[in-house]
Amino acid sequence: MTSSILVVGSVAFDSVKTPFGVDDEILGGSATHFSIAASYFAPVRLVAVVGKDFGNSHVEVFRKHNIDTDGLSVADGRTFRWAGEYSFDLNDRKTLDTQLNVFEKFDPVIPESYRSSEYVFLGNIDPELQYNVLQQIRNPRVIACDTMNFWIEGKLDSLKRTLSKVDILVINDSETRELARLSNLVKAANKIMEFGPKTLIVKRGENGVLMFRGKTIFAAPAYPLEDIYDPTGAGDTFAGGFMGALAQANEVTDAIFRRAIIFGSVMASFNVEKFGVDRVSELKRPEIEERFKQFKALTHFEEL
Amino acid sequence: MTSSILVVGSVAFDSVKTPFGVDDEILGGSATHFSIAASYFAPVRLVAVVGKDFGNSHVEVFRKHNIDTDGLSVADGRTFRWAGEYSFDLNDRKTLDTQLNVFEKFDPVIPESYRSSEYVFLGNIDPELQYNVLQQIRNPRVIACDTMNFWIEGKLDSLKRTLSKVDILVINDSETRELARLSNLVKAANKIMEFGPKTLIVKRGENGVLMFRGKTIFAAPAYPLEDIYDPTGAGDTFAGGFMGALAQANEVTDAIFRRAIIFGSVMASFNVEKFGVDRVSELKRPEIEERFKQFKALTHFEEL
Repeated sequence: MTSSILVVGSVAFDSVKTPFGVDDEILGGSATHFSIAASYFAPVRLVAVVGKDFGNSHVEVFRKHNIDTDGLSVADGRTFRWAGEYSFDLNDRKTLDTQLNVFEKFDPVIPESYRSSEYVFLGNIDPELQYNVLQQIRNPRVIACDTMNFWIEGKLDSLKRTLSKVDILVINDSETRELARLSNLVKAANKIMEFGPKTLIVKRGENGVLMFRGKTIFAAPAYPLEDIYDPTGAGDTFAGGFMGALAQANEVTDAIFRRAIIFGSVMASFNVEKFGVDRVSELKRPEIEERFKQFKALTHFEEL
Repeated sequence: MTSSILVVGSVAFDSVKTPFGVDDEILGGSATHFSIAASYFAPVRLVAVVGKDFGNSHVEVFRKHNIDTDGLSVADGRTFRWAGEYSFDLNDRKTLDTQLNVFEKFDPVIPESYRSSEYVFLGNIDPELQYNVLQQIRNPRVIACDTMNFWIEGKLDSLKRTLSKVDILVINDSETRELARLSNLVKAANKIMEFGPKTLIVKRGENGVLMFRGKTIFAAPAYPLEDIYDPTGAGDTFAGGFMGALAQANEVTDAIFRRAIIFGSVMASFNVEKFGVDRVSELKRPEIEERFKQFKALTHFEEL
């Protein structure tokens, strides 16, 4: 039976410039991308902070997807803002502006009604806050988390304490190499799994995803698209589809994990097709299933 | 019934430096890596030129794999030499030295006994020479070729003339973008297929391979290895395994092409495990089949 998912992370206004256009102050942030993607699979409970400038129309985007917003607190001040620009081939981006605003003092309090959540995703926030969140959860079944080079470089001990409590770490390939201090990805993955997570998911952008679980490895490609408009949030959207599919199946097997990786990749492939959450927030379930089948066609070959 | 393969390309002495060691003047070159890999699947006929310094012990490496060396001509002078050094993560390399020697005047003449070859691989040489080779072949069934940025930039018209006669082009991702003058890989692939090749295979190093055939795409990962010693020749080894598997099946279907891509990836994964051809020239067929199965385990997921 489908279980529910708790996500803690950022809700932000993003200003994005890509070779294909510009969009200002659109709804973004890790918890936003995650929760909308996950909502197609399982009930989602959101913990984040926004400012007084966060309007009802924005809250409506979550409500439309039955995302529980009891944990969305409104603080004095402005909502987190991020601005970035992508290179011509979308493989590099530079941050033009970061205004943490109310996010700077984010100290997530998990509402009582959320504390029995079995599936937990800790978005990319201070590893000390991630740890505090876990102290508030009663009996989690699967805990996944994200992090970034900023925390690897600045709060490694805190990060390792958090990782010791986590089942699944979802990071990109350069973070994997940096966290393990090893250039070979397989060796790096094996080392990171010793820190705690029994599963490591390495996101490689247009090159897809590698999942390491003990001694087994699963490789999934990214869906080759002719038109990619905005990669912002693709990683969080992936994580949302992945955790959503896990919570929906509510069973921990290698086959379920592999299918969840494909569902995550499916959701990420939709995310990049339009700016912000424009594409993912308008999906229909048959579109998701159709693209899942296309992933099968993309990767299938006959046995010997 | 298995058909035979004609390969035209370079035979060289490589001096390679990687973070894991140095090896000087070892047997290398596109036709060398290709033919040894292909020899596990089908009879191979080699066309290349070497110098007077190319000893019997080197010829023996080919003979041991039943590679036909009637087309290996010995010219006055020294064999082609290449020296290169890899970065710490093996993803970049710089060429330290290139001495074309006898390869500079290479003008391949196809022996009469080779002219009925049905499977043809044109290694990365001057596209005018590639075209001349094709004029000498009677009734080829599948023609594949490689090229590089040097020819894309310097001999584009000749290259396009060659491509108009070719069934399969095997190049890397940056060559794909450069040849099509498009940054999106799917768009670039579609444009290149209009130049002639009905199949485009894009090699992406540690990120695997994409095969475009008409409207279908097949994605295969690279095999994640803990120990990579020398990537030199991985692309040609891939092409050898791919063309070998095609010639062995001797049937042109999408399923056969997909399995051939996996066999190519299998052979490339062995190639990088030791310097030069040390690993691939010592393989046993069961090892190849075992790694093919590991590729299945690496990519398999259940349908909906």
